[in-house]
Amino acid sequence: MTDDQDQIELDTAEDSQRPMREQIKEALDQRDAEKIESLLAPLPISGKMRQLLSLSQDDRDLLLELVNAELAADLVEEAPHETATDLVERMEAGRAAEVLDELDSDLQADLIGDLDTEEAEAILSRFDPEEAADLRRLAAYEDDTAGGLMVAEAFSFPDTATVGAVLRGMVSEDDDFERYRGQHPYVVDADDRPVGVVSLRGLLTAKRSDKLTTIMTTPMTVSVDTTLDELQDLFDGNNYLGLPVVEKDGRIAGVVSRSAVDAAALERAESSSLKRQGVVGDEVRAMPLWLRSRRRLAWLSANIVLNIIAASVISAYEETLAAVIAIAVFLPMVSDMSGCSGNQAVGVTMRELSLGIVQPKDAFRVWLKEVSVGVINGLALGVLIGLVAFAWKGNPYLGLVIGLALAINTVIAVSIGGVVPLLLKRLNQDPAAASGPLLTTITDMAGFFLVLSLATLMMPLLL
Amino acid sequence: MTDDQDQIELDTAEDSQRPMREQIKEALDQRDAEKIESLLAPLPISGKMRQLLSLSQDDRDLLLELVNAELAADLVEEAPHETATDLVERMEAGRAAEVLDELDSDLQADLIGDLDTEEAEAILSRFDPEEAADLRRLAAYEDDTAGGLMVAEAFSFPDTATVGAVLRGMVSEDDDFERYRGQHPYVVDADDRPVGVVSLRGLLTAKRSDKLTTIMTTPMTVSVDTTLDELQDLFDGNNYLGLPVVEKDGRIAGVVSRSAVDAAALERAESSSLKRQGVVGDEVRAMPLWLRSRRRLAWLSANIVLNIIAASVISAYEETLAAVIAIAVFLPMVSDMSGCSGNQAVGVTMRELSLGIVQPKDAFRVWLKEVSVGVINGLALGVLIGLVAFAWKGNPYLGLVIGLALAINTVIAVSIGGVVPLLLKRLNQDPAAASGPLLTTITDMAGFFLVLSLATLMMPLLL
Repeated sequence: MTDDQDQIELDTAEDSQRPMREQIKEALDQRDAEKIESLLAPLPISGKMRQLLSLSQDDRDLLLELVNAELAADLVEEAPHETATDLVERMEAGRAAEVLDELDSDLQADLIGDLDTEEAEAILSRFDPEEAADLRRLAAYEDDTAGGLMVAEAFSFPDTATVGAVLRGMVSEDDDFERYRGQHPYVVDADDRPVGVVSLRGLLTAKRSDKLTTIMTTPMTVSVDTTLDELQDLFDGNNYLGLPVVEKDGRIAGVVSRSAVDAAALERAESSSLKRQGVVGDEVRAMPLWLRSRRRLAWLSANIVLNIIAASVISAYEETLAAVIAIAVFLPMVSDMSGCSGNQAVGVTMRELSLGIVQPKDAFRVWLKEVSVGVINGLALGVLIGLVAFAWKGNPYLGLVIGLALAINTVIAVSIGGVVPLLLKRLNQDPAAASGPLLTTITDMAGFFLVLSLATLMMPLLL
Repeated sequence: MTDDQDQIELDTAEDSQRPMREQIKEALDQRDAEKIESLLAPLPISGKMRQLLSLSQDDRDLLLELVNAELAADLVEEAPHETATDLVERMEAGRAAEVLDELDSDLQADLIGDLDTEEAEAILSRFDPEEAADLRRLAAYEDDTAGGLMVAEAFSFPDTATVGAVLRGMVSEDDDFERYRGQHPYVVDADDRPVGVVSLRGLLTAKRSDKLTTIMTTPMTVSVDTTLDELQDLFDGNNYLGLPVVEKDGRIAGVVSRSAVDAAALERAESSSLKRQGVVGDEVRAMPLWLRSRRRLAWLSANIVLNIIAASVISAYEETLAAVIAIAVFLPMVSDMSGCSGNQAVGVTMRELSLGIVQPKDAFRVWLKEVSVGVINGLALGVLIGLVAFAWKGNPYLGLVIGLALAINTVIAVSIGGVVPLLLKRLNQDPAAASGPLLTTITDMAGFFLVLSLATLMMPLLL
């Protein structure tokens, strides 16, 4: 049903799409900014992005140059991280500053942090010095920490202020007020430390002349280096839309919003799933060919080395293979099936890690749980493939060799698959990137070894 | 750095954990609810969940029975979807109603919708009839549509109301007001259709006696069957924290919040990544062994059939294999490397689909882009593996056979990997679940066929 509607949506977009790209191209050639804006206007933001990325690189640059800064900023904001950096990098510094000015400070800082120092400084020089200093400070925080995810603007008032001052602030701060959306007003002391938070209900029931200190409650704060995992936990545990972030010395540094945390979690989940598939960086097909090719190759070349190591096991048993050539039919099967079983275990562990319900020190418990599944599934698959081998080649002992090898290797595969991500996490390595290839190589080697050594042992019965 | 801090966090938790589980067990045996609550209190919500899931099923049930309904509800809310349903299913109906009462209506409806009809009705009978009717209605909406993601409570006022009425509403609605968090007040006409939305600034600057109709603006609304993709686009394109959801007849049905959409997107990304790895449903290791085993086996058995099909290609060329046994060493390598290349292409397409920057009808353009990468990477990998084969076995023609086969198969693999998810999407199939096995089988078959048929052709040179 959901997919159905998706489909309808896509089809509707389709009717207008083929001429659309040509119309945009035409408008670009005529430098007709208004035409481009009106062509893009009815599209959802992902549709606008799709049109932008379907253009050549020069046309993309031209489009972002021509349209109003707000639309350019929307596109930069919607683009995958790396693409966004690339788009800004290719803008002239003055234009880049104009576009960045339309973005929230957390995204500004992300982009500034990813540019070359020289380009970053060229852009920062267009901002007023105070804002530039703020951005440099923000850019220095680690991604996926409260410092990296917060906006620098806090909706804060001194502890001497009155309710009336806050209400006037809410009413008057126009566009800037937009940046505070969902924030409660914070009360800070003379040293800029958040000492209170004021509820809307409090504001509406108090007298305008009341001091904020009489209606405020103590705020929950997080430190600039609070991790994304911890932030997710905090927001899961309450209804706040934002939390004030404090520096080591207790001064308020900014505010991290629930939606910034949600967006970062989504991005992390997607990039971790990509890494497991051997996609490095956030590749989109609009990137230059050589870049996409080089990155994929880097991962594949590492994989080829691991494959050679695994294949050397087969090579060591060429005599056995030559004697019972039917085994060659089953080698890739045993290796693939074990790989699948192992991957299932990796998937479950990665998910449990991301939910926070498993930790590296649970490795032994995880291993026990995996072995139980491994024994059952290993037996089932072993019997199945053993029967297939027997039926196919007519030799019951061949069935025994293949079935036994797959059964044992399934247990090995789920053990490694379940536990390795935890060990990698413990060693501060990224469990997503390394689990896959490591798992495949080891299960391949073990699978080949099991099949071929069992066959060597039982050789007289196989001939 | 992030990982580092993660680590520290985990270690801190570790010190208190081993005794913690025993302390909880002890408190459970003594039916000491307060003790359990105070043990869990300092943990973040994911930590509480981890403790719960590390208990036996009976102890889990007992814990949720003993603690206050609010904590039980927090745990149900934090649990993965299926686990949450299971936890509620095992509660006595009265208790389940108590716990559900603490949850937002979208989650209530999700849970009700997933229970057996009988159990659902037993629980619903404890709610007041109007609320129960609301929940039945909510439960009927598709997941991942505005109807399925919204809360039924809208912070709405009749078009005859005054500013003062809204301000009084904000101040007085106590706990219920919590459920409206982030919602602007909506104005509805006599037929319950949303005709206006009122900004906080408007409320604060107007006189209390002013009619809402004088300060309201026309609200953006979504229909109950708006898809998650469309909702993501809408929220990306503006700053709203929530949007009113209307029935087909235009009446307001509820409000969908930005954070509900974000959470659903995160869940979908994670479950799609799991499906690609052959994990069906949201398995956590706290589930019963037989269930985990059976589900994994279902997927593996389908895979074994595909593997047999691929292996039959090898079987058809046993003579060639017997003549040049060295080929058996390279068969799994060609199959694995092509599979990796294809998976990279699948990953990029899945990501572009989720970003909305590619659509099924872009298949041809995607294919062209993939073929370019495939040719470059195929040549590079082919030369590499060809040299390895030559160096290893001393026969340049063996190198040629293996290298050529891998080169061609890489192009095939990236073509299939890039395009198949788009075709599956076009056919309303889930691209995540089917791409992997389909891809592997076809690239395996093609790889085996290429190596073995090329070898058969060049047989005299290989001996």
